[in-house]
Amino acid sequence: MASTLIDSRIFQGIFASDAMRQVWSDENRTQKYLDIERALALVQGRLGLIPQDAADEIASHCTIEQIDMDKLRQQTERIGYPILGVVSQLNALCRDKLGEYCHWGATTQDITDTATVLQIREGLALVENDLAGIAKALAKLAKEHRLTPMIGRSNLQQAIPVTFGYKMAGLLSAIQRHQERLAQLKERVLVGEFAGAAGTLASLQSGAMQTQAGLCAELGLKQPVIAWHTIRDNIAEVGTFLGLVGGTLGKLSMDVKLMMQTEVGEVFEPYHHGRGSSSTMPQKRNPISSCYIHAAISVVRQHSAALMDAMVADHERSTGPWEIEWIVLPEAFCLMAGALKQSLFVLEGLEVDADAMRRNIEMTGGLVMSEAVMMGLGPYIGREVAHDLVYDLCRESLAKKLPLLELLAAHPEIAKHVDRAALQRMLDPANYLGQSGVMVDRVLARM
Amino acid sequence: MASTLIDSRIFQGIFASDAMRQVWSDENRTQKYLDIERALALVQGRLGLIPQDAADEIASHCTIEQIDMDKLRQQTERIGYPILGVVSQLNALCRDKLGEYCHWGATTQDITDTATVLQIREGLALVENDLAGIAKALAKLAKEHRLTPMIGRSNLQQAIPVTFGYKMAGLLSAIQRHQERLAQLKERVLVGEFAGAAGTLASLQSGAMQTQAGLCAELGLKQPVIAWHTIRDNIAEVGTFLGLVGGTLGKLSMDVKLMMQTEVGEVFEPYHHGRGSSSTMPQKRNPISSCYIHAAISVVRQHSAALMDAMVADHERSTGPWEIEWIVLPEAFCLMAGALKQSLFVLEGLEVDADAMRRNIEMTGGLVMSEAVMMGLGPYIGREVAHDLVYDLCRESLAKKLPLLELLAAHPEIAKHVDRAALQRMLDPANYLGQSGVMVDRVLARM
Amino acid sequence: MASTLIDSRIFQGIFASDAMRQVWSDENRTQKYLDIERALALVQGRLGLIPQDAADEIASHCTIEQIDMDKLRQQTERIGYPILGVVSQLNALCRDKLGEYCHWGATTQDITDTATVLQIREGLALVENDLAGIAKALAKLAKEHRLTPMIGRSNLQQAIPVTFGYKMAGLLSAIQRHQERLAQLKERVLVGEFAGAAGTLASLQSGAMQTQAGLCAELGLKQPVIAWHTIRDNIAEVGTFLGLVGGTLGKLSMDVKLMMQTEVGEVFEPYHHGRGSSSTMPQKRNPISSCYIHAAISVVRQHSAALMDAMVADHERSTGPWEIEWIVLPEAFCLMAGALKQSLFVLEGLEVDADAMRRNIEMTGGLVMSEAVMMGLGPYIGREVAHDLVYDLCRESLAKKLPLLELLAAHPEIAKHVDRAALQRMLDPANYLGQSGVMVDRVLARM
Amino acid sequence: MASTLIDSRIFQGIFASDAMRQVWSDENRTQKYLDIERALALVQGRLGLIPQDAADEIASHCTIEQIDMDKLRQQTERIGYPILGVVSQLNALCRDKLGEYCHWGATTQDITDTATVLQIREGLALVENDLAGIAKALAKLAKEHRLTPMIGRSNLQQAIPVTFGYKMAGLLSAIQRHQERLAQLKERVLVGEFAGAAGTLASLQSGAMQTQAGLCAELGLKQPVIAWHTIRDNIAEVGTFLGLVGGTLGKLSMDVKLMMQTEVGEVFEPYHHGRGSSSTMPQKRNPISSCYIHAAISVVRQHSAALMDAMVADHERSTGPWEIEWIVLPEAFCLMAGALKQSLFVLEGLEVDADAMRRNIEMTGGLVMSEAVMMGLGPYIGREVAHDLVYDLCRESLAKKLPLLELLAAHPEIAKHVDRAALQRMLDPANYLGQSGVMVDRVLARM
Repeated sequence: MASTLIDSRIFQGIFASDAMRQVWSDENRTQKYLDIERALALVQGRLGLIPQDAADEIASHCTIEQIDMDKLRQQTERIGYPILGVVSQLNALCRDKLGEYCHWGATTQDITDTATVLQIREGLALVENDLAGIAKALAKLAKEHRLTPMIGRSNLQQAIPVTFGYKMAGLLSAIQRHQERLAQLKERVLVGEFAGAAGTLASLQSGAMQTQAGLCAELGLKQPVIAWHTIRDNIAEVGTFLGLVGGTLGKLSMDVKLMMQTEVGEVFEPYHHGRGSSSTMPQKRNPISSCYIHAAISVVRQHSAALMDAMVADHERSTGPWEIEWIVLPEAFCLMAGALKQSLFVLEGLEVDADAMRRNIEMTGGLVMSEAVMMGLGPYIGREVAHDLVYDLCRESLAKKLPLLELLAAHPEIAKHVDRAALQRMLDPANYLGQSGVMVDRVLARM
Repeated sequence: MASTLIDSRIFQGIFASDAMRQVWSDENRTQKYLDIERALALVQGRLGLIPQDAADEIASHCTIEQIDMDKLRQQTERIGYPILGVVSQLNALCRDKLGEYCHWGATTQDITDTATVLQIREGLALVENDLAGIAKALAKLAKEHRLTPMIGRSNLQQAIPVTFGYKMAGLLSAIQRHQERLAQLKERVLVGEFAGAAGTLASLQSGAMQTQAGLCAELGLKQPVIAWHTIRDNIAEVGTFLGLVGGTLGKLSMDVKLMMQTEVGEVFEPYHHGRGSSSTMPQKRNPISSCYIHAAISVVRQHSAALMDAMVADHERSTGPWEIEWIVLPEAFCLMAGALKQSLFVLEGLEVDADAMRRNIEMTGGLVMSEAVMMGLGPYIGREVAHDLVYDLCRESLAKKLPLLELLAAHPEIAKHVDRAALQRMLDPANYLGQSGVMVDRVLARM
Repeated sequence: MASTLIDSRIFQGIFASDAMRQVWSDENRTQKYLDIERALALVQGRLGLIPQDAADEIASHCTIEQIDMDKLRQQTERIGYPILGVVSQLNALCRDKLGEYCHWGATTQDITDTATVLQIREGLALVENDLAGIAKALAKLAKEHRLTPMIGRSNLQQAIPVTFGYKMAGLLSAIQRHQERLAQLKERVLVGEFAGAAGTLASLQSGAMQTQAGLCAELGLKQPVIAWHTIRDNIAEVGTFLGLVGGTLGKLSMDVKLMMQTEVGEVFEPYHHGRGSSSTMPQKRNPISSCYIHAAISVVRQHSAALMDAMVADHERSTGPWEIEWIVLPEAFCLMAGALKQSLFVLEGLEVDADAMRRNIEMTGGLVMSEAVMMGLGPYIGREVAHDLVYDLCRESLAKKLPLLELLAAHPEIAKHVDRAALQRMLDPANYLGQSGVMVDRVLARM
Repeated sequence: MASTLIDSRIFQGIFASDAMRQVWSDENRTQKYLDIERALALVQGRLGLIPQDAADEIASHCTIEQIDMDKLRQQTERIGYPILGVVSQLNALCRDKLGEYCHWGATTQDITDTATVLQIREGLALVENDLAGIAKALAKLAKEHRLTPMIGRSNLQQAIPVTFGYKMAGLLSAIQRHQERLAQLKERVLVGEFAGAAGTLASLQSGAMQTQAGLCAELGLKQPVIAWHTIRDNIAEVGTFLGLVGGTLGKLSMDVKLMMQTEVGEVFEPYHHGRGSSSTMPQKRNPISSCYIHAAISVVRQHSAALMDAMVADHERSTGPWEIEWIVLPEAFCLMAGALKQSLFVLEGLEVDADAMRRNIEMTGGLVMSEAVMMGLGPYIGREVAHDLVYDLCRESLAKKLPLLELLAAHPEIAKHVDRAALQRMLDPANYLGQSGVMVDRVLARM
């Protein structure tokens, strides 16, 4: 029985991905505990800190199948943390009391934190993969529509033409930076924890730092400079990273939603029979994926603040702040996996209606070309004078519902400097795409 | 396989309660859909809007056992919402196409919103019950320890004595207000939704308002004044209510954590063997429940902001904001159920060490009575002069590690007005509990 | 020199209101301190706790003009709180050391909290006033446009017709509930604080509760049941109230922004020359006020979470959480004052283009009437069959760009049951406004 | 008249710094506008896009003193943005209509965004400077107290000894990572904006990219790859950076608060007469700076979420999301400047009481050494057996109030393996500091 949407039998495929849910599952988390206990035993056996026999025996029992999960739940509810339960079960599995050597010198949080980092590594790999897919899909759209004119909008008002490729390239530039951020933060966050009760490794009278180094190497993690049981900037940074990626996906979904409006109709989420259909309004084509993205990233943004709250940890092992991470990390990763999946689905199958884009440019009878006209007239009559003049003629065009061209051509001051044909050229959108293509190229060059 | 802590096989008993998880389960949600479709059919049958035969046939199939949940998942992933799937399955269950009359005039969100309100009603009933339990436990502690002296602390500095009962009564006063808030918000939020595609009930050419009224009556909900598909202050208010209750539980857990410190040791969470024990530090007695409370309410606070974000809905049916509620409501309720459960556990079994409280009052050698002395000297030498004088003597007492009484008795200006015996009386904590008992009584009188 | 937008010489009129800024100004806050010290002295004089002479002398100096604000800043930076500085200046202003009797039995936080409540009372009065204005403007629009048809939108897709009055009435229903919430929370929050160092009033050996009662009465506040120095649900509730109101204004601004889109053009923010104009695009008419509303309430929503964080207070006087309120309350109130002001401006001057609304209904060639057709055909061929049939014809209409009427009339199964004229009636929006008017009336009846 | 604490005459020195307030002042912001207009004119003059005469004339008027700020406020309130007002005033200042050439090809947001980046650069420089100061102070403390023993605490329970230097080094490791993050994000965020109405630079028919490159070079900023008017990950990242730094300062303040408790008394914020004093409790020494830090960073954390909300921008120029940044950025920077200042003050003047630290280690009669004993006994009787045994003896020691040593020495199973002298060595904290010193060295090595 699931009560969250992430784990819901009905909704889990919408608000999360199977792969990401697996990363944060009880089974994977517990297996990570075992992986670490195994690695620890092997390293300490190698270093001669525990008998090689014990190391081998322990290592042989570190698979999730050997753990009684119901018993683990009872142990966890009694003790408050699952590690002692896992260690105690592992111990019991070993012959000849060799299990006594497992968890040697470690504290609960060492195992939990390192497991979390291993889960984060898997989670970030999935994010990285999705970012690459999204970047590829955006690049494809940017290239294909490098010079497909559409109206640019400012304050939800038609402004001047841009290209659809330019719009996609803007999003792509953010994804590229997210990829850069991810590479940088992995250096900081993929670090093991092995520090003992208060972080000093006092529990190991010899071989402490060697064990730490060996354990991290065994797990493919970096060795920490110092214990980070209550120094949590790295974990919080993961949250902010997810939140930032979410912001970009939110912008994507916002634009798709707006472009899919009945009155706009420029792009459409991929369609298959019944998708996004309403139980009562057969004509609708809902931006379903965009809805899910919008919702998921709104929650992740708040999770990101909660993870900063978790940084306000007390002393050497915190009293509550740490547990914030337990709750938030799985949800933030799963919701982002859902949002990334939906974004990828939207981008890979996006239907682009270039004709509708063109129609929308033309719907104002030339008003959206007013800046072009203003800039064109500037050299003759001055930029600000041109601005005020065109501004007034636009109002007149709106009020009298007359095409801007007629009013411009009829204006004596303008007629002094430019003729109707020149005005018409100024009013052609194809002549006013500016650096759209150049900017697309600049972004694509970074792929 | 669960990936959230709320649904985790290992942690679900810690961060949520079974009862609350059941409220937000797929099964209960889907049953609520069916309850509403059933009530709708019955009401419309009664009103003659659909054939009585159809109403009866539909009603007979509205149990969760008749729904194929795997199929529902597929339908939901294809369409985006589960309602159409439920309706279609229900339709198929009915003989002679009578199922065509189910969902008559309703839209997806009508069923979803009303189901959510029914779940909220169940969820709030659980919260109400826990609040009553917590109030009772606090009242018991307040009464028992009405005059048990302990040091009051300001800025984490020992200030002047209070009583432990007074401390509990302060928390109780907040719980009482939460109970008042709950009663008030139920009037606003326990309201049905039945409004059709854009909220106008245009789908029913006759009997629209009667159906709405009848449906709400059948479900024990209030009739809405107007459709609230995108007017979500009520849902957000539920979130803020949970967040506010969380704040109070957070204050409780903060105080318990601080009082359980090794250096303070005044109260203890209930103990049973192994609870809150460390894998490495056998002497520790961890405030486990307080940790969980602290973490859960930190997340719920942010959920509350997310629900306000969900209010920024577009037009008649929103595009994303609504789905924020889907994610957040179950989690906020479940986490609060966990926090309430842990709080109740702490309060019902709290160990109070009155001796330790007394010892802590005395540890500063009288300094915590300095206000008492200052107020006692005020009438003789003026409040501010007394303040400055006592202030300086306190510093001297700290610096020279001399009892304050000695310094006071030796001061010539003071000796002019009061003798040593009078000073000693001023320094006795039992004489400086102020209105602690009176305030306890005032709060208890409201139970 | 101001660094926040709220206090900016340039922006203060946009993101705040003068009246609200005055409420939270240094001058008003300090005057509130003095008002309380004055009331305290008068009450204690009356009760014979301090000499009447002292009470009169103190009362005569409780005006902001007598306070040296620069000195107060220095005192505050040295001590950490301004109260001791104010008391010390007040003391110095009094003749014959009578000032020693001021602040008698009070602690810093008593004065600060009570001053905050007095400021909240003034702030809420401004909010209440604006809510009344907004309710009035919404009611006017709802009444005037009770039956002005416009398209209802779901998922940003045209759905079925509603009326503009219905849309305004929905918002109005939320404002009405906010007014109810405000009335209820004032009962909880407009409560004085006078409790001494740890809340027990030990500082007053006699007349403690009488002083508390008298002081609160003098200031027009309710007497607290118990000290609330660290029981902050009431303050946080003020924050959530502002956040909830913000959510409703956010929904208003969202709809205005969307309706002002060039492609939609149904309503417009009030216009005066240059307002919302662009430096480069003279044709634009920006939803400036809606932008400001959107931004302000996004921040207030987060402030509301910060105030819940402030509830996690330690012991009898908190160490940091309290100061969160200091920062957040003025900003939340000021930003909301800005948002309310902008909302009022928008609603009082809103230009409604009923013709454009009509045009938009008609732009899909009848598709938005598909539900009406489906409901009309339901009695003949079954609801679900009708749904699927109409659904398919809508897709065909979209694909072939043919009016829905033609396809319906040409369909043999439909032709069996209804003729072209009947279909045409089903397709007329005026016949499909449902209970829009009834719902408007229900909301207006609550004014 | 100021209404925010940041600009308050009384509180501005507490919750912000003068230097940071200057950065975000109206005056500096407006001067930045002028700097950019000046640079733009000079670059375009150089490129021959505008007359050199015009460039020189414009450049000569780009100082804040020539701007009428009252008029600017009126213009801003009328138009909604200040840029058009500045441009219009600048134009009017120029002789012979040469001012018409200013703002050539730019749009409002180009100037605003670039000004914001220039302010961010100044703001980050101040943050960088404070981080360096804090790192230095932490390094000094870490070095001085490399081996000063204190008790490590887990779950607010005394756990095992650490050193004070180790505690400081942990914080230092986070500051070092913040410095790394800052260096990395500056590469992304210190980028100019010059893109015209919809980001395509269509406004410049020639020299568009050269102008962009030249302008950025002139201002010492990087050239953008593509317009970022509505691609705001960089701005949001600045917010998350501030939030992350805040988390670390929050941890610092939490530990200082806890260590300053009357019952703990291990460190003290710097003292000068009256600082942190109470109006009623002369003995108190309040952690005033820690309070301010705690409060400020709690708010900044929420600001960080608001900046992510601002990323959900619509189309080419957003309708509300952008304005979130206007409100939040100045406040987040100012509050962080306050928190950094207070942190620096605390760390540079921190009083460390090594004797008290030692006393606290000893207060449990050896219980905090139980892990040491357990690890010491492990090789003889097995780790888990040792754990259970010591665990039970600790409980007995607590219950009977007997020193742990006595119980250990008296235990027959233990006596078999180790004698009293060996037990005494196991119980000496100095022998159980583990890798504290090594870890300090590892962190210091990165300075």
